[in-house]
Amino acid sequence: MLEKLKEEVFLANLELPKQGLVKYTWGNASAIDRESGLFVIKPSGVDYETMQPSDMVVIDLEGNVVEGTLNPSSDTATHAVLYKHYQEIGGIVHTHSTWATIWAQSGLDLPALGTTHADTFYGAVPCARFLTQEEIDRGYEAETGKVIIETFEERGLDILAIPGVLLHGHGPFTWGKDAKSAVMNSVVLDEVAKMNLFTRELNHFSKELPQRILDKHYLRKHGKNAYYGQK
Amino acid sequence: MLEKLKEEVFLANLELPKQGLVKYTWGNASAIDRESGLFVIKPSGVDYETMQPSDMVVIDLEGNVVEGTLNPSSDTATHAVLYKHYQEIGGIVHTHSTWATIWAQSGLDLPALGTTHADTFYGAVPCARFLTQEEIDRGYEAETGKVIIETFEERGLDILAIPGVLLHGHGPFTWGKDAKSAVMNSVVLDEVAKMNLFTRELNHFSKELPQRILDKHYLRKHGKNAYYGQK
Amino acid sequence: MLEKLKEEVFLANLELPKQGLVKYTWGNASAIDRESGLFVIKPSGVDYETMQPSDMVVIDLEGNVVEGTLNPSSDTATHAVLYKHYQEIGGIVHTHSTWATIWAQSGLDLPALGTTHADTFYGAVPCARFLTQEEIDRGYEAETGKVIIETFEERGLDILAIPGVLLHGHGPFTWGKDAKSAVMNSVVLDEVAKMNLFTRELNHFSKELPQRILDKHYLRKHGKNAYYGQK
Amino acid sequence: MLEKLKEEVFLANLELPKQGLVKYTWGNASAIDRESGLFVIKPSGVDYETMQPSDMVVIDLEGNVVEGTLNPSSDTATHAVLYKHYQEIGGIVHTHSTWATIWAQSGLDLPALGTTHADTFYGAVPCARFLTQEEIDRGYEAETGKVIIETFEERGLDILAIPGVLLHGHGPFTWGKDAKSAVMNSVVLDEVAKMNLFTRELNHFSKELPQRILDKHYLRKHGKNAYYGQK
Repeated sequence: MLEKLKEEVFLANLELPKQGLVKYTWGNASAIDRESGLFVIKPSGVDYETMQPSDMVVIDLEGNVVEGTLNPSSDTATHAVLYKHYQEIGGIVHTHSTWATIWAQSGLDLPALGTTHADTFYGAVPCARFLTQEEIDRGYEAETGKVIIETFEERGLDILAIPGVLLHGHGPFTWGKDAKSAVMNSVVLDEVAKMNLFTRELNHFSKELPQRILDKHYLRKHGKNAYYGQK
Repeated sequence: MLEKLKEEVFLANLELPKQGLVKYTWGNASAIDRESGLFVIKPSGVDYETMQPSDMVVIDLEGNVVEGTLNPSSDTATHAVLYKHYQEIGGIVHTHSTWATIWAQSGLDLPALGTTHADTFYGAVPCARFLTQEEIDRGYEAETGKVIIETFEERGLDILAIPGVLLHGHGPFTWGKDAKSAVMNSVVLDEVAKMNLFTRELNHFSKELPQRILDKHYLRKHGKNAYYGQK
Repeated sequence: MLEKLKEEVFLANLELPKQGLVKYTWGNASAIDRESGLFVIKPSGVDYETMQPSDMVVIDLEGNVVEGTLNPSSDTATHAVLYKHYQEIGGIVHTHSTWATIWAQSGLDLPALGTTHADTFYGAVPCARFLTQEEIDRGYEAETGKVIIETFEERGLDILAIPGVLLHGHGPFTWGKDAKSAVMNSVVLDEVAKMNLFTRELNHFSKELPQRILDKHYLRKHGKNAYYGQK
Repeated sequence: MLEKLKEEVFLANLELPKQGLVKYTWGNASAIDRESGLFVIKPSGVDYETMQPSDMVVIDLEGNVVEGTLNPSSDTATHAVLYKHYQEIGGIVHTHSTWATIWAQSGLDLPALGTTHADTFYGAVPCARFLTQEEIDRGYEAETGKVIIETFEERGLDILAIPGVLLHGHGPFTWGKDAKSAVMNSVVLDEVAKMNLFTRELNHFSKELPQRILDKHYLRKHGKNAYYGQK
């Protein structure tokens, strides 16, 4: 079942080490079929060199395995919670990519300092809080999804305008309309995290991008008046 | 039309990811044919793996498409303004290369701290100011070109002696006698931006290169007494 | 003798430059056959491009060459001391990998600042002291092994829960159940060293990972309740 | 003439971009035949992708071209001065490698902070002063060689024990018994420069390697009691 989606998810997972975002089996990509309400995710800890599209695992929105002989990614419940809450998300990626993880470890929101950021993220990428002991006991991965939702709701953020989050002490999650765009958003997030760290090191007083430039760059690529790319 | 120039511009665009200066479709290279007053630029947001020389778009100096079925780069108007104002420029490149963009985000001129810089740039590479809301409304890309011209004129800089600029909060533009040399100047600019950032981190009191060394290095490679390379 | 183990050790050594952990012949990997009490290690200073599995040298727990025509790694005595003292270790790797060596040169323990660290190391990776002149005179490499043991014993650390150490002014040693996992631990250690350095640069007040998150991540991958990967 | 040496110098030059030490045609390697008193150096500004062993230029100790149709490297006179003064040098390399150049731009000696340094350089790598206007007028490249000699003589340094120098505001020169070992010393110098910069950033109070460890590491690889590598 969902053979085409398995192929897409398989390719998205292979793209992660190719783009330098994951080493070994760290990281996972998934994508959902909204008609059936089922999503496809990579299996846990399987070597990328031998992994096949048919190794992908099919999961329902409660996080149960529907098809597949291998254990799904240990972060599956986080994906399930996000897909269930946000109908507009089609693909999700989790990595420990170097520079985004550095911001996550430092516990800081990633501010918009340049147009590379503004082309993809319409404002700062938030850093979500640590889970409490109670949340960890209740179910670490599902509760991680809930903390992401809490972060976006408390701050009134649009999940598609800011397609990513940093988990304090852990690393980034990104999402998009499909697995491929979620991967691309992970690439942008890591590059922007690198550039912003060194921008602040070079000039401790570097200011955030003026709102007018942020608007211009985000809106020339997104929304009804976008004019970047081909129709 | 301009088939040879399309091939050159195509190859110059492919060189950008190969040199590590762009990810995905970020960045654009162009070159002009001064006889016809037309320039060739890459199309907007087209995947580099499938792009062909015939996908390049031909543009006149007012920024109008003369030939091509694809939308040209969204930064086309910036290229047009620069080609029109500076007859001596034959090729232009825009990237979000990591280290040059870091300097652009920090809003600082890139000072000449070493001979790697002096071999290509005869002094500091200036950082141009943010556009005003009025300028953005009037036409973001064309006005960007005008702000570059303003920066060079206000400071009395020679466009060929300093073949590059940093746009505050955005990234670098470089140029040269053709597309290939504009790419090379982008490579040098990014490398120098990296070295100068860490030079200042290592020694906060690092001084600019003495004028006599700047002169010696720039002039052994450029001008009538140059003796670097083959005749 | 030990042909299969030689092949494993050979491949583990080749993996080191492939993972970017060693240049030229810096670094060495070994693995032990606990039945015979013999271990296999790479020869000293042999070019990785011409090295063969049959060039591996067989050593006993006193550090004597049992088989092989080439000189073993100059660090062989350190490996022997560790294998003799810790029955639970199956493979050992020594490198001068960039970021772990930077922490070693700075003389600081590597604190657990994130879950990438916690997935492999159950707490800070200790930095062992410099050897005294007397220890150097007695036998630099064997005494290095003894200082590693001293470090783990004085601090009451579990050798398998913290499968690595930093030698002050020198670089890292890592170990594991076999050569392959020792290599993997070297990769993790270097990546974590890089991320933690920049985490502290970005936010000088970055705190160590809360104990509850450290526990959760380490224990979902290790021990009887682990649920990461396939059975 | 000197066909074998041309092949060696050709390969040493190709190794520089392969090791990430040079971009485009920046950098040059040479080697000398002490019997004839002639050395071989790469031509100036020739593309590495089309360069052939037969393009190498043969030079005498006064810096005159003895054989070759192409212009030799613009730094040829520096090589000539060093070969003439130091009979024990067989190969010389000059690059603008990123991290060594950063130290050169900051005008600081590179201190010995670890054993990676001590395995190759028996103490700090000195930073030589800027040339005066008078020296530049007299002949920039030959005078650069003289300033290197001055640096080693004033400080009483052994040219083989410290096989490299940083030129203030410029970049490194390294040397060795042949072109291959001079390249290897450039690789070590750049890696050590990178590690030492970040060691000092991580811990501003990082101390130099104790003399006893410096002695041990240098002397287990060099001199009559060396025991590293194969006989």
